[in-house]
Amino acid sequence: MPRIVDHAKRRREIADALLSIVAEDGIYGATIRAVAARAGWSTGVINHYFSDRRDLLLGGMRRAAEVGAERQQMIGRTMIGRQALEAVLEENLPLDSRRLALSRIFVFFYAEAGVDPAVRLEIDGYLRGWRRQTEVALRAAQECGDIDTNLDPTMTSIELVALADGLGCHALFNDDVLERLRTSSSVRTWVNRLTHQPVA
Amino acid sequence: MPRIVDHAKRRREIADALLSIVAEDGIYGATIRAVAARAGWSTGVINHYFSDRRDLLLGGMRRAAEVGAERQQMIGRTMIGRQALEAVLEENLPLDSRRLALSRIFVFFYAEAGVDPAVRLEIDGYLRGWRRQTEVALRAAQECGDIDTNLDPTMTSIELVALADGLGCHALFNDDVLERLRTSSSVRTWVNRLTHQPVA
Repeated sequence: MPRIVDHAKRRREIADALLSIVAEDGIYGATIRAVAARAGWSTGVINHYFSDRRDLLLGGMRRAAEVGAERQQMIGRTMIGRQALEAVLEENLPLDSRRLALSRIFVFFYAEAGVDPAVRLEIDGYLRGWRRQTEVALRAAQECGDIDTNLDPTMTSIELVALADGLGCHALFNDDVLERLRTSSSVRTWVNRLTHQPVA
Repeated sequence: MPRIVDHAKRRREIADALLSIVAEDGIYGATIRAVAARAGWSTGVINHYFSDRRDLLLGGMRRAAEVGAERQQMIGRTMIGRQALEAVLEENLPLDSRRLALSRIFVFFYAEAGVDPAVRLEIDGYLRGWRRQTEVALRAAQECGDIDTNLDPTMTSIELVALADGLGCHALFNDDVLERLRTSSSVRTWVNRLTHQPVA
């Protein structure tokens, strides 16, 4: 009887091996060969699941996005108010190795989104999902009195996600920015400003 | 007597032709051939100044950064207070075709900054410059009473530039975000929040 292979599981394992390499060595080190060695398979097995290096990186991005979305949903179930809003925003900041890989692989595909409409749609889909989770958390925080109810939740979510993603992206290029993000939470500082109504 | 060619001027003209194509058609349309046609030179002339398409795109990025830096300095000479701070931040948002080209070409090289340390240094250098101009404007706005003097100018500049760059980047992937940026200034809204001291 042939061995039953759980292909979805194996794809996930390969994608996770890729992400751990991206976290340690960056995109540059994430080759088919390196991923094969890390996952404990031959390069032939990797090529069975991913047609080339770009496809493998895309697989890594989808896996990172999947894990990120699961965690954002968990935040929604376990936290409330301003705390939940901050956690949703910090979920995609490179504050640990998992999120470092996520940031690196997303920024890598930001460039491709500029030339490939399919990648653009995919990236935009993840950003929309992040904004949606932020908006849900923001509305809940408004309802429980943590956030100024005069704020437009849609526009404010666009802005908060842009702030978080901009910080995450710039931290990849500058170790000082990364260090500052890790020692003091900019997201918390800015969310704190939303509890007060600015005078026009 | 041989014709004297102003090589620096011709390089700038070629880079400007590239940027106008990037603004109209995106990075994808910016080929050596298209730039040659736009600039009114043969592809051989373009190849004399730029060794390949990537080198041409790098030239375009440097030219966009040069023009951007000049404009930021002009803002510093002609505006004051909160208005100057807002203008420095909006200088790199894709609110017109010049800044659209700048945003597109920067995001394109963000990916390369992840794999090429020289590009990373260059991108980080531009971001540092943008933060420096922001910090100068922020300190001046604090001095004239427009901005809360309790804010740390360095950290706040990192955050404001991340917000502006994140918004600009996301606007490239989503026309709705771009439209919202063009009709209402998020930068102004967020700078406005810095005039008030949040309660911890």
